[in-house]
Amino acid sequence: MGKQPVEATEQLDASFASDNVAGVSPEILQALTAANTESALPYGGDLQTSALTDWAKSEFGAQAEIYPVFNGTGANVVGLQGLLDRWGAAICSVQAHVNNDEGAAPERVGALKLLPRPTVDGKLRPADITAELSALGFVHAAQPQAVTLTQSTELGTLYSRDELAELAETAHSHGLGVHIDGARISNAAAALGTSLAGITSEIGADVLSLGATKNGALAAEAVVVINPDRVRGTEFIRKFSMQLASKQRFLSAQLVELFGTELWRRNAEHANAQAAKLGQALAALEGVSITGSTVVNAVFPEMPQEMAARIQSAYLAHVWDTAPSGNPVLRLMCNWQTTDAQLDALVAVAAG
Amino acid sequence: MGKQPVEATEQLDASFASDNVAGVSPEILQALTAANTESALPYGGDLQTSALTDWAKSEFGAQAEIYPVFNGTGANVVGLQGLLDRWGAAICSVQAHVNNDEGAAPERVGALKLLPRPTVDGKLRPADITAELSALGFVHAAQPQAVTLTQSTELGTLYSRDELAELAETAHSHGLGVHIDGARISNAAAALGTSLAGITSEIGADVLSLGATKNGALAAEAVVVINPDRVRGTEFIRKFSMQLASKQRFLSAQLVELFGTELWRRNAEHANAQAAKLGQALAALEGVSITGSTVVNAVFPEMPQEMAARIQSAYLAHVWDTAPSGNPVLRLMCNWQTTDAQLDALVAVAAG
Amino acid sequence: MGKQPVEATEQLDASFASDNVAGVSPEILQALTAANTESALPYGGDLQTSALTDWAKSEFGAQAEIYPVFNGTGANVVGLQGLLDRWGAAICSVQAHVNNDEGAAPERVGALKLLPRPTVDGKLRPADITAELSALGFVHAAQPQAVTLTQSTELGTLYSRDELAELAETAHSHGLGVHIDGARISNAAAALGTSLAGITSEIGADVLSLGATKNGALAAEAVVVINPDRVRGTEFIRKFSMQLASKQRFLSAQLVELFGTELWRRNAEHANAQAAKLGQALAALEGVSITGSTVVNAVFPEMPQEMAARIQSAYLAHVWDTAPSGNPVLRLMCNWQTTDAQLDALVAVAAG
Amino acid sequence: MGKQPVEATEQLDASFASDNVAGVSPEILQALTAANTESALPYGGDLQTSALTDWAKSEFGAQAEIYPVFNGTGANVVGLQGLLDRWGAAICSVQAHVNNDEGAAPERVGALKLLPRPTVDGKLRPADITAELSALGFVHAAQPQAVTLTQSTELGTLYSRDELAELAETAHSHGLGVHIDGARISNAAAALGTSLAGITSEIGADVLSLGATKNGALAAEAVVVINPDRVRGTEFIRKFSMQLASKQRFLSAQLVELFGTELWRRNAEHANAQAAKLGQALAALEGVSITGSTVVNAVFPEMPQEMAARIQSAYLAHVWDTAPSGNPVLRLMCNWQTTDAQLDALVAVAAG
Repeated sequence: MGKQPVEATEQLDASFASDNVAGVSPEILQALTAANTESALPYGGDLQTSALTDWAKSEFGAQAEIYPVFNGTGANVVGLQGLLDRWGAAICSVQAHVNNDEGAAPERVGALKLLPRPTVDGKLRPADITAELSALGFVHAAQPQAVTLTQSTELGTLYSRDELAELAETAHSHGLGVHIDGARISNAAAALGTSLAGITSEIGADVLSLGATKNGALAAEAVVVINPDRVRGTEFIRKFSMQLASKQRFLSAQLVELFGTELWRRNAEHANAQAAKLGQALAALEGVSITGSTVVNAVFPEMPQEMAARIQSAYLAHVWDTAPSGNPVLRLMCNWQTTDAQLDALVAVAAG
Repeated sequence: MGKQPVEATEQLDASFASDNVAGVSPEILQALTAANTESALPYGGDLQTSALTDWAKSEFGAQAEIYPVFNGTGANVVGLQGLLDRWGAAICSVQAHVNNDEGAAPERVGALKLLPRPTVDGKLRPADITAELSALGFVHAAQPQAVTLTQSTELGTLYSRDELAELAETAHSHGLGVHIDGARISNAAAALGTSLAGITSEIGADVLSLGATKNGALAAEAVVVINPDRVRGTEFIRKFSMQLASKQRFLSAQLVELFGTELWRRNAEHANAQAAKLGQALAALEGVSITGSTVVNAVFPEMPQEMAARIQSAYLAHVWDTAPSGNPVLRLMCNWQTTDAQLDALVAVAAG
Repeated sequence: MGKQPVEATEQLDASFASDNVAGVSPEILQALTAANTESALPYGGDLQTSALTDWAKSEFGAQAEIYPVFNGTGANVVGLQGLLDRWGAAICSVQAHVNNDEGAAPERVGALKLLPRPTVDGKLRPADITAELSALGFVHAAQPQAVTLTQSTELGTLYSRDELAELAETAHSHGLGVHIDGARISNAAAALGTSLAGITSEIGADVLSLGATKNGALAAEAVVVINPDRVRGTEFIRKFSMQLASKQRFLSAQLVELFGTELWRRNAEHANAQAAKLGQALAALEGVSITGSTVVNAVFPEMPQEMAARIQSAYLAHVWDTAPSGNPVLRLMCNWQTTDAQLDALVAVAAG
Repeated sequence: MGKQPVEATEQLDASFASDNVAGVSPEILQALTAANTESALPYGGDLQTSALTDWAKSEFGAQAEIYPVFNGTGANVVGLQGLLDRWGAAICSVQAHVNNDEGAAPERVGALKLLPRPTVDGKLRPADITAELSALGFVHAAQPQAVTLTQSTELGTLYSRDELAELAETAHSHGLGVHIDGARISNAAAALGTSLAGITSEIGADVLSLGATKNGALAAEAVVVINPDRVRGTEFIRKFSMQLASKQRFLSAQLVELFGTELWRRNAEHANAQAAKLGQALAALEGVSITGSTVVNAVFPEMPQEMAARIQSAYLAHVWDTAPSGNPVLRLMCNWQTTDAQLDALVAVAAG
């Protein structure tokens, strides 16, 4: 039982292992310092949270509520509980983070049932919703009451505005709510050239997990209740889900700095752009092809086995898949802080 | 549902409302900046977590494990789950934070039963343990498998080393484990003039919620598994309890700065000393008596109604109890950053 | 782990150990046989369930719903979940079955918080409700959303109709729902000379655990939703709480036979009458006094130690309490099938 | 919310809708009557439970424990909780009852994660186990700790003894436990010509949900702990899972009558034989083919749309699938009480 969850592998460069290997944007560290003045009411009775609420209402509508939390799993599980009755279930992609990478927190903490749907590209289609509707009213089955969409997806793909609107329309027309897992919502909005509202409140989402940590924050995410008519009790759910910070001003300060300015977009655009550059540079190498299209900050290059081995001897890099050719497909993630020098170094290792 | 959990009451001074109104120690903010260098492995594969583990082993024994978490409720619920089987229950004081102030997270997230015992001063006695033992083996009752002790207590009282050792001895002799809710363990150790180990690992505790936020951190606590033979699966429990930080280096950096130096003791001694001063100054006022003894950082003055009203017109201050005289008893908390000027100002308001 | 939950103690007479030592009323066994004709739809689509629903609507009002379940814990936990949000808590007596004798099923299955109140006689007062109301809206506390009343109580006491009405009025006026744990509701109604509705739907209860097993059924209870405006999703909650019987006709047949006739009242009156006789006979013995008043089917005689020892050498009998005199107080339960000969035999043993 | 879970459809014949439409074997009703003699200790301290334990030890080994429960979902969720740590997950077929038809009780009551695997015929293969093993030790994933096998499956297929042994060997070699959902274990043993032990304890299963209700009982199943070294705390888990009967003698009496005699085999053989006859008779009709092989008590005939419509106008019959031809595939279940006359009548309707 004494095993630490991750081995410190100081000999490998972690820079492309995930976007959470990055540090904190200097502006956000400054905001933390600026928030560290005098006594402030705990649990949200502070000026930073007040400013955050103002921002959320301006972005997502006057009815919106915002609840800072500690991490993405917390945001997802708090948000989904507010959307679902005790007997509810949430339709998700079988590849969704909520299904694979949260240690069953949705089931164990939220007492949710997930209804995972096979997807080719990590994206649900309206037919994935309708395929589960036969369970409605059938007492033996968990009742589908929501769909949860990851934007951008675990496979680096994006829902367009129209796709989101159609999914939300389908869900709502059958009485289901819409949750967006926006751990990388900034990357998505930057790639699509929209506001955050443009791919959340404007397309009919009811509740959003607003990600910040991967995009330059220290540790801060938020549950945004866009539609309080469908999402109930979030303040209480956040508390018993152990996601209420006592010195909340320091969570809110991160979020205000990131979202109350254009920092979120700059950081996300940078990460996306570096991924695009990386993809182009790798694609120029013999034997490499980029699977999918690099629309956000993840690159999935298929490459000869020897090249993958060279990269993995220097970098912590996940083999994501095996291509039909038999060659490995790596996942390489860029982040707000990825430098051109880092890209060049990686490509040089790949080139051998 | 749109009600924010705490009203911002900017017109009232919050300085004595709790010890979590305080900011962050400058050393800790510097440590965060120092940790913000290059890419680091997430989820604990970083140098700061490695250093934290080294510290924990040197303080609590080579077998010890340490798991940074986000907040105190998280630490308590993660630690207790590792100690209890699915059918277990934890004996606590009816006044314990875990019983009253965690939104039922122990029950809802941990599926625990709490067995609250009435206590005069917030402190359990060995008889409180033995009184619950008749449930052992009785299938209708949740099985007492642990006792959870708050050090220092919600009433500002302390367990002595001998009291802790006797409680642990009683618990262990009946097969129960020992959890310490150490949200204010630093204040306790400072008041008792011991090391942290002196009132945890050395007296037989099995798992500790190591508090840091109230004592100068931004947002960081830790579950310390002192006895891995009794506490299982903590790494997995932390994950599904949504208390695993991706950029864990920033949690560990706070903890290393606080506990790897004497900062924890300096901060706690300051808070305790300011409370002692405040108690003495208030006690000198006509009609005031201090209930209990001010051994850590909380003062519970009984005072005339008019005086309480004067204080509450300027400060956010909780009426904690009503004395036999009918007069109110306030709870006033000092913290690592409470200044003499703040004490003087409060006393002046009290004096009228 | 191989320990069986209860030791078979064939050498001791179990007749007064509880009212669940009794067998099944012959009428109910006949009803089971009568229901065992041809194929019937499972899960409630059968004629017996249809008849049961008709009865429930005639007894508790046209809006009432009835859901047969397997046991009393199941009825309580299903009923309370329908009444409470995910963040809710239920006020109960510290002596309540739901608090002590359900293995923490309310917490573990229902994710409920119980708010136990000390009571002298097992009965809550309106002040017990109002004492918990300060938690309303306080995000750190589980939110009181219901009161659960046991009728008759674990101490053999009864709420009068007026007491129930006042409690329901108090609860409702603060937005709380009312659940009645009616494991012995028949004994209560018989003792009070009312209908079942008279102490449930007519006094404002929202949901009832309708007990049958202790009063002559084989294994059957029901959740009666009296007020569907407050109690939601019971059909789904029953299912995931594992209380939905496939061959439900055999549960419903028991309930229809018991409640659709006067059998419930006859059985309960008999049990109550035998307890009264037993109390009188014991009170006539030297050194015995009956604590409380024997209003339903439990007798609590205080007696000399030697007499208690004599009884316990022949009978399985629980020492319930120690009287101020130092003498033990036993709990002796009568049931629908307790005979005069059994009473005489017990009294003879007591007399020595 | 007032919707009853199943519509009473008295106009449709339910005889082939499921095997739980059947009544109770006369022998079992007699056993209930025989058990209804005098006072008996509740919760298992009775003679019938004692006899049941003797039988279980003789069938499954001296180390075996048996815990009667109310229904199959209860048996599955109690058994799996004993096998899994709080952080555990169970590999199952995506078609498993535990995954689809238990209202998420495994997740909500047991806080389990299910890891559903696509299967063609409802049967897991060793590769389904090994495919999930990469999650072992990966802190973000629920930890695979058990495999749950349905015997016979939801698709009417059977695992052979060798297949079971290989699956158990695979599971055990990786540290996983083996649970068998034996809601229809009698039909399987009858079809395979083995004892119950032959396809459970003898092939390495650790815990068994022993089904009785579908095979002639009124309402009774049992959790059989075959390997107490792997399955802990079942008596307590059963209690908080609300599956402990007070008058347990009446559950045990059903099980003793069924399994302590050859009744279980006679009933199961009858159901299997009637299904085989039904399959043959239907297959003789123009346009009908039987999908799969009818090895237990379910028949899955593919038939012309008009024939299916004729059947459904008279019978409650589920369309289970659509064949590649576009024709519907019905599921028709026989049970211990299905008569030849019932078969003839159904075939006549089908023939038109």
